[in-house]
Amino acid sequence: MDLKFIHGLAAPAQTKIVLLIMDGLGGLPRQPGGRTELETAHTPNLDRLAEQASLGLTQPVGPGITAGSGPGHLAIFGYDPIAYEIGRGALEALGVDFDLRPGDVAARGNFCSLDANGIITDRRAGRLPTAESRKLIELLRTIQLEHVQFFVEPVKEHRFMFVMRGAGLADALSDADPLKTGISALPVRALKRKAQPAAQYANDYIAQARRLLANQWPANSILLRGFASLPSVPQYADLFGLKAAAIAINGMYRGVARLVGMDILDVAGATLADQFATLEKSWCEYDFFYLHVKETDTCGERGDFDGKVAAIEAVDAQIPRLMALDPDVVIVGGDHSSPAVLMSHSWHPVPLLLYSRFVRPDGLAEFGERACQQGSLGVIPATQVMPLALANAGRLSKYGA
Amino acid sequence: MDLKFIHGLAAPAQTKIVLLIMDGLGGLPRQPGGRTELETAHTPNLDRLAEQASLGLTQPVGPGITAGSGPGHLAIFGYDPIAYEIGRGALEALGVDFDLRPGDVAARGNFCSLDANGIITDRRAGRLPTAESRKLIELLRTIQLEHVQFFVEPVKEHRFMFVMRGAGLADALSDADPLKTGISALPVRALKRKAQPAAQYANDYIAQARRLLANQWPANSILLRGFASLPSVPQYADLFGLKAAAIAINGMYRGVARLVGMDILDVAGATLADQFATLEKSWCEYDFFYLHVKETDTCGERGDFDGKVAAIEAVDAQIPRLMALDPDVVIVGGDHSSPAVLMSHSWHPVPLLLYSRFVRPDGLAEFGERACQQGSLGVIPATQVMPLALANAGRLSKYGA
Repeated sequence: MDLKFIHGLAAPAQTKIVLLIMDGLGGLPRQPGGRTELETAHTPNLDRLAEQASLGLTQPVGPGITAGSGPGHLAIFGYDPIAYEIGRGALEALGVDFDLRPGDVAARGNFCSLDANGIITDRRAGRLPTAESRKLIELLRTIQLEHVQFFVEPVKEHRFMFVMRGAGLADALSDADPLKTGISALPVRALKRKAQPAAQYANDYIAQARRLLANQWPANSILLRGFASLPSVPQYADLFGLKAAAIAINGMYRGVARLVGMDILDVAGATLADQFATLEKSWCEYDFFYLHVKETDTCGERGDFDGKVAAIEAVDAQIPRLMALDPDVVIVGGDHSSPAVLMSHSWHPVPLLLYSRFVRPDGLAEFGERACQQGSLGVIPATQVMPLALANAGRLSKYGA
Repeated sequence: MDLKFIHGLAAPAQTKIVLLIMDGLGGLPRQPGGRTELETAHTPNLDRLAEQASLGLTQPVGPGITAGSGPGHLAIFGYDPIAYEIGRGALEALGVDFDLRPGDVAARGNFCSLDANGIITDRRAGRLPTAESRKLIELLRTIQLEHVQFFVEPVKEHRFMFVMRGAGLADALSDADPLKTGISALPVRALKRKAQPAAQYANDYIAQARRLLANQWPANSILLRGFASLPSVPQYADLFGLKAAAIAINGMYRGVARLVGMDILDVAGATLADQFATLEKSWCEYDFFYLHVKETDTCGERGDFDGKVAAIEAVDAQIPRLMALDPDVVIVGGDHSSPAVLMSHSWHPVPLLLYSRFVRPDGLAEFGERACQQGSLGVIPATQVMPLALANAGRLSKYGA
């Protein structure tokens, strides 16, 4: 089912949907025959909700495919993550919470070291410390060209975000970064005719940066790669008729939410409790809330099984606050799996809980991978979650008479 | 997900995958309420493996579709069996282990009987005995034309393989065999302009064959049908980054494996034990092994329920040898179902076992149709098996950041 079809059925209603995403939720047992992180966690509130809910598992991209957070989120937001690809540069910009706009061209930047002949000797300028990097970013900010605006933001160590804004830019650009040392940086080339102005601006910028940084060894030049604009994505308000808000702390998740047209709510503080307080405060103003929990993925990626268990339990403790708001539909799930034993994202399907007054309850009194395996939703593409949520919220009209 | 997408994510690793195919594995109970062949078989080793594995069922082509061995194999090898069709003639050539090359045009040949007016009186020349057929094949081998090479190989009784090799051939050709008696054989016609030379060669060949066979009643002419070249199929090494080997006794399976770029290993002997000895001997040289067991299908097709049970038990007895090699990923499945009660291939989904250290084990301590039905993989298209295998072997990188 494509988005046009869903769009054609979308109907207004006075109902509220909450999409609670625990990043990297899916896990694996620590040892064969054991329990996953979610199965280990003591989650009385989620278990009670599970009993009244339909359970299942989501595939963010497809069987065997390990999803990054970008495609993982786009999928559970309802968009085909292969059709709507977010390029590397655009992700970098979203990650630093930069207000990347349609038509902007973003890239990932590196400070690097060149020898007297312009040969790259270190692509990372000795992993320049972040504090040093910030100073050099100030130098780069003095670069000006006609007809185009430049934005640079520090990311971490030698890395920074680079954005061009102006009329008639296009992102079909080759990398300046050859991804190896011992050769010169490459000129940025337009891969399509319409990208020629952008290629010229990028090359002029790099030339100016090299002059400005000439005496800043080891960071005496820059490399740019992964030029990308934001994909043009149908907006939640128009697509689903939802007034949607995002409650996320980290830049990238705020960025992906902004991309689909959600309002990004300010969270006073950085704790889960602060995020749920924001949910309570904004409850009357929106139809749809996306609440993002980062800690589960952070622990999974660093191999901290117990930390991930604790992060899940912390979310469980907030569930009564959520249910006290009397939401019509609650989805609890993840954007991908991040099993602590793998210390990375993985391809395993992700637990999903769909609560509303109108589901056929599975009566499985536990929220965990194996319970979800037995759930009535089955193993489904993550893109099917939003149509199910909308249906349960009375927001999809009948197809055909 | 298409192959281009998977190809874009394929990443090298030092891991080994074994794809063990029991031909026609899926079955049906002998009587209602009974057990299938696989459920009847005493398979302690497969059952133990199942307990640590994810189970499921594969659809080779689609719901309700009975797959031939060609499409059944292509699907579990990862290729859409509808997009990559292997024509009848090409299958015939693969079946006799002929080294069919890209651009060759193959056909299925029959010796037939013509009356004095050239009317077909028997399309099979009285089911000419194979020994007679071999002698006539030697006659056909004397036929020569400029610009094209011909190859003929006996198959069985009146049937033989016919192949044309040369520059500028194409397989868009109509059949010479009208599939009925009482009329003349048809001229081979080019269905596309570029097939005109091939049509001319085929007609010239048939005319020469008729002259050569004039005194060989009842086999005084030949019929050709099912002209087909090999489809152009992305090769395993390039597509998945796998150095792949096939351990198969029968020609057709060797042929399909060769088609996707696998090396065909010599098996000293023709028993299962010989095949597993080849696996052991070649273990260090390849990343991927396809091991084909024919007996299960042979028994299924002749309605020999007990024989099929015994064939499965014989495979089970070899499993410890396989696991002693410490493979990273083991897939045990089939190319299609061949229930003994149907005495033919069937459309039923095929049991699948996926073992690796990184699956979520289903804990179902039995490998059988009903256990697989409860498995976490669900009922999946067979084309999804390879992406899952690659993921579990650490051979697919993350999609998006």
